[in-house]
Amino acid sequence: MTLQVGVIGTGMIGQDHIRRLTKVLSGVEVVGVTDIDQARAAAAAPERAEVFATPTALISSEKVQAVIICSWGPAHEEQLLACIAAGKPVFCEKPLVTSEAAALRVMEAEVAFGRRLVQVGFMRRFDADYRRLKAVIEGGKLGEPLMFHSVHRNASVPEGLYTSEMPLNDTLVHDADISRWLLSDEISGVEVRVPRRSSRGGKLRDPVFVLLHMASGALVDVEISVNISYGYDIRGEVSCETGVAALPNRPATVISDSNGIRQAIPEDWRERFIEAYDQEFREWIVAGSRGTATGPSTWDGYAATLVADAALRAVASGGFESINMIAKPDLYGTSTAMAAE
Amino acid sequence: MTLQVGVIGTGMIGQDHIRRLTKVLSGVEVVGVTDIDQARAAAAAPERAEVFATPTALISSEKVQAVIICSWGPAHEEQLLACIAAGKPVFCEKPLVTSEAAALRVMEAEVAFGRRLVQVGFMRRFDADYRRLKAVIEGGKLGEPLMFHSVHRNASVPEGLYTSEMPLNDTLVHDADISRWLLSDEISGVEVRVPRRSSRGGKLRDPVFVLLHMASGALVDVEISVNISYGYDIRGEVSCETGVAALPNRPATVISDSNGIRQAIPEDWRERFIEAYDQEFREWIVAGSRGTATGPSTWDGYAATLVADAALRAVASGGFESINMIAKPDLYGTSTAMAAE
Amino acid sequence: MTLQVGVIGTGMIGQDHIRRLTKVLSGVEVVGVTDIDQARAAAAAPERAEVFATPTALISSEKVQAVIICSWGPAHEEQLLACIAAGKPVFCEKPLVTSEAAALRVMEAEVAFGRRLVQVGFMRRFDADYRRLKAVIEGGKLGEPLMFHSVHRNASVPEGLYTSEMPLNDTLVHDADISRWLLSDEISGVEVRVPRRSSRGGKLRDPVFVLLHMASGALVDVEISVNISYGYDIRGEVSCETGVAALPNRPATVISDSNGIRQAIPEDWRERFIEAYDQEFREWIVAGSRGTATGPSTWDGYAATLVADAALRAVASGGFESINMIAKPDLYGTSTAMAAE
Amino acid sequence: MTLQVGVIGTGMIGQDHIRRLTKVLSGVEVVGVTDIDQARAAAAAPERAEVFATPTALISSEKVQAVIICSWGPAHEEQLLACIAAGKPVFCEKPLVTSEAAALRVMEAEVAFGRRLVQVGFMRRFDADYRRLKAVIEGGKLGEPLMFHSVHRNASVPEGLYTSEMPLNDTLVHDADISRWLLSDEISGVEVRVPRRSSRGGKLRDPVFVLLHMASGALVDVEISVNISYGYDIRGEVSCETGVAALPNRPATVISDSNGIRQAIPEDWRERFIEAYDQEFREWIVAGSRGTATGPSTWDGYAATLVADAALRAVASGGFESINMIAKPDLYGTSTAMAAE
Ligand SMILES: [Mg+2]
Ligand SMILES: [Mg+2]
Ligand SMILES: [Mg+2]
Ligand SMILES: [Mg+2]
Repeated sequence: MTLQVGVIGTGMIGQDHIRRLTKVLSGVEVVGVTDIDQARAAAAAPERAEVFATPTALISSEKVQAVIICSWGPAHEEQLLACIAAGKPVFCEKPLVTSEAAALRVMEAEVAFGRRLVQVGFMRRFDADYRRLKAVIEGGKLGEPLMFHSVHRNASVPEGLYTSEMPLNDTLVHDADISRWLLSDEISGVEVRVPRRSSRGGKLRDPVFVLLHMASGALVDVEISVNISYGYDIRGEVSCETGVAALPNRPATVISDSNGIRQAIPEDWRERFIEAYDQEFREWIVAGSRGTATGPSTWDGYAATLVADAALRAVASGGFESINMIAKPDLYGTSTAMAAE
Repeated sequence: MTLQVGVIGTGMIGQDHIRRLTKVLSGVEVVGVTDIDQARAAAAAPERAEVFATPTALISSEKVQAVIICSWGPAHEEQLLACIAAGKPVFCEKPLVTSEAAALRVMEAEVAFGRRLVQVGFMRRFDADYRRLKAVIEGGKLGEPLMFHSVHRNASVPEGLYTSEMPLNDTLVHDADISRWLLSDEISGVEVRVPRRSSRGGKLRDPVFVLLHMASGALVDVEISVNISYGYDIRGEVSCETGVAALPNRPATVISDSNGIRQAIPEDWRERFIEAYDQEFREWIVAGSRGTATGPSTWDGYAATLVADAALRAVASGGFESINMIAKPDLYGTSTAMAAE
Repeated sequence: MTLQVGVIGTGMIGQDHIRRLTKVLSGVEVVGVTDIDQARAAAAAPERAEVFATPTALISSEKVQAVIICSWGPAHEEQLLACIAAGKPVFCEKPLVTSEAAALRVMEAEVAFGRRLVQVGFMRRFDADYRRLKAVIEGGKLGEPLMFHSVHRNASVPEGLYTSEMPLNDTLVHDADISRWLLSDEISGVEVRVPRRSSRGGKLRDPVFVLLHMASGALVDVEISVNISYGYDIRGEVSCETGVAALPNRPATVISDSNGIRQAIPEDWRERFIEAYDQEFREWIVAGSRGTATGPSTWDGYAATLVADAALRAVASGGFESINMIAKPDLYGTSTAMAAE
Repeated sequence: MTLQVGVIGTGMIGQDHIRRLTKVLSGVEVVGVTDIDQARAAAAAPERAEVFATPTALISSEKVQAVIICSWGPAHEEQLLACIAAGKPVFCEKPLVTSEAAALRVMEAEVAFGRRLVQVGFMRRFDADYRRLKAVIEGGKLGEPLMFHSVHRNASVPEGLYTSEMPLNDTLVHDADISRWLLSDEISGVEVRVPRRSSRGGKLRDPVFVLLHMASGALVDVEISVNISYGYDIRGEVSCETGVAALPNRPATVISDSNGIRQAIPEDWRERFIEAYDQEFREWIVAGSRGTATGPSTWDGYAATLVADAALRAVASGGFESINMIAKPDLYGTSTAMAAE
């Protein structure tokens, strides 16, 4: 009954997932690994796991029942298509793919296969705080959601390596995905405003302020600060017709001392979302053991790609950039935007 | 040493200020009142106060040392000009005046007089929570302010009487004024977005989302909800370079019961800002006793007029509406926008 | 209509009350002062106030309508009796008197006079947080109060000058009085436990833990720490049958920085209770203008004296020390302990 | 590498642990079960697990590497002794045993064996909130701990079935154990006070107030309420020399609605401590796989037995009941009370 898993890509995130599958979770075994750096793959491989020469070999191996893709983005399309061709469930880290066209190709293949196989790594959907927030909104006692204020603060980014496209390409996608999921809605357009820059980032475009226009008319405003020094701080508040619901502070000892009455803030995303990552794979294992996938889908990865593209266009244009999705294949459920009317 | 005050307009707000001056505050005496409804003026007049037939008579009376204007907006300009002509300190409730041209005329008169006489009724500047927030920002330990998230929620508005212009004309001005004051900055442009409407207001444009672009480049986003049912909820958070500072919850008993662990929220602006109103007049009395005015000035009333006008234009245009102020007269201090560079 | 007040004792607290009566409050005028140090009295006297040679002269002066006693404790009895003999309302700082016998003599005189004249300086009863807490308890939705956890922390005490009796004589009385008032109850016995001592106080008995047994059976536990360094921190939580109600944190800017998400704590009792002191006198002025007194009474001062005495006995005995009050004179209302049954 | 586990007792708690070991945790397999009710054992047994006729058969089976005891308390001693005789790691739910003499016999056997085998089910020690609290105290920045205020509230207890001994026998032991662990201290004496009773429990002795005197001199006060209706509410605050550290509220959506700004409270201990139970077994599996035990020990179970006995004596005597432990065997580490001096 144990799901036999192969891991493609044994960099930092791949190693962390191997640790998680080996030490934390049940019902799963890592039976194969591969990496462009074979020595790194061998070092990361658990006892008894095979080191494959290529992703293709791993995916096609009979001993591998399900695949985890932690390679770099440009390699994802080919690996996803191979998994779908083999009919094997696959977890794919963000980004799903790196272009709208690629996303459509993957979606076409999965739809043709006729069963969901792909789960994309939007871990926030598995965070207990976000799940409780969604349950409150969907409980309906506060009326319809009208606005969502999403705050995404990161302590620091590596100078030089981190470019001004990254807050929109890598960071915004989390807020965009969680907005779609929390509000059961789609994004129909994007605007970007660039406030006074933080002196901590030199010429880096930071902070960035984004407006996501939802199909229902709900408005999402996103504050992205990637160099705010004090910690990794994710906040969110949904304004509904008769009340408001927000993420709580993270549990932390309440200390009263000469700095006031206070609670520590997470240092980084690992600390903040460690349980969410565990839960993300717990659910993936359950679905994978049944030969399918649940959670964030190819459709969600496609949506994220469109939002990042539109956000980059919006920086350039200074105006509203619309998002036009294809009709939602039945495989991915009823149109949530319609449902929200 | 007691300041002898005349009150113009004895409607709800005028009566409340008379109560405040009579029962709560020291160093002040209401010696005269007037209203277009003489009977209402007589009823509101404290013992020993004279009921004047007209604002002009009140303002010119020798027994009146300082004036409080609580009449309706269109009457303000003439009354303010009369006070300035008489050299008497004057507190004027919002709006200062109802057009940019009128604001400039009042400013010209006050500048010509050569000493500040006018205080405008932006009571938030006297609220202890906002004052502490400003002190933290100006303390400088968090670096420069880059963004300000201002939330303005009102439980309900009278159906039919309340129009879609009012969130921008009457409500936004508080957020705009407090933004200028908190950030020591000026507003250079306004954008307005209209999210999905609350079903509680029928065709009312509610909520409204406003972006204020500050001269320094700082960006202010304002959520205005006027029908949110659960209470009067004013929140604000300033994002700076290395930290964030926010208004606290209002002090209220922490109750743990079947509704959770919870604190009551103010019902309306009277409850929320009662101490701020007291403090607003305390400081007006001190300055008035010295023949001058401090606090929000004619310049601030002028700025508020420009913001409201620009916001209404922005609703119509859907785009960015710039604000162009005249050079700031020396009477109103150094240019804060410059100071913020 | 202005209450003409004389102040006995112009030390630190007397000076602060003169400032409050002169600069903050309305409906009152300080017309006379006296002090054993005549120069100090003269320096503290507001313009137009007379400096009296003795308390007796001040109390008997026709121009003095009401008296404020800020002299040292041993002088209170004589001054209170003189005020009662003169039929003048009097505010008396803690302690009311310094012995049970003295308290009974003052009470006997006031009862014989037939109208309340004395208000004792238990300022916590005028604090908005405590008042809201009492309102919640008396609202009855949480059922009967069964326990009260009262925390009284002080940043530091002067080494050498501060003795081990003082936490019980000077500090505990506030918790005892507020317990009686919050719970509408009387104290029937006291126990004291002395935990491990703080190294910050040398041989000082600090912290001290006190149990107050209420007539209704409710139990109050009090943590007194007088040297806790980080601030002046007053907390309280009442456990009722179906819920719990507690004092909130003090309003303070919510700062997120490298020290966490945090709010400042008051530095000392002046900062914590400044509005309560103002309100205490506001209500005293109203009652005094009608020739009487409300708020904490001679009965409450008598109760405080008994508690402090019992607490000191309890330290010595290590056991339960009972408190036996006389029957409550009608002048001070119905027996609250009975009401609580 | 998978730990082969046998479970004795398949009642509610046993079934929950089987679920946890089977569905949630990794590195473990339930290979055997037994219960006095064989049908219940068979129903609870996972696929491929053997149903043993007796605890003795299960403990002695070669396929069982480690044992979990969820039988009723009076059966624990014999089962623990059998596990120790077999040299098998064993997790034992509370109570370890039901008398001081039994605890000493188990301890003697384990000490004679020479390696720790027993872990007792004090799950609070595995709760993330308590662990962070302990880390703050041991970090030392707040000075030595002097007092600990522990609040233990339960929504309701079954009328008739729940007796007045149970708050001391079953509930207090959690507060006692966590006090010893948080403060790295031992309990030297106990006092119990019984406040006014809640009308919700009829003649039930509820609430109960307990003082634990620690060997270091630190004082612990415990509020136990078992019928408080609103939820399961565990709070704790440690007062140290220069600061205070407390458990936070549980993470829950912050809702602003007509009930105020609020967060839900757990309904019962399952909800509150679900992650702690998971972690408790995670660590037991790791130690068990190495043939030993960590976490709460036989020594801790012995201490809990002494506290419960002393608390029951204290109710009867109304006074201080001392606790006298034997010298701590080296197997259980250095004397923490000494370490705390
Ligand atoms: Mg992810
Ligand atoms: Mg105003
Ligand atoms: Mg006082
Ligand atoms: Mg347990």
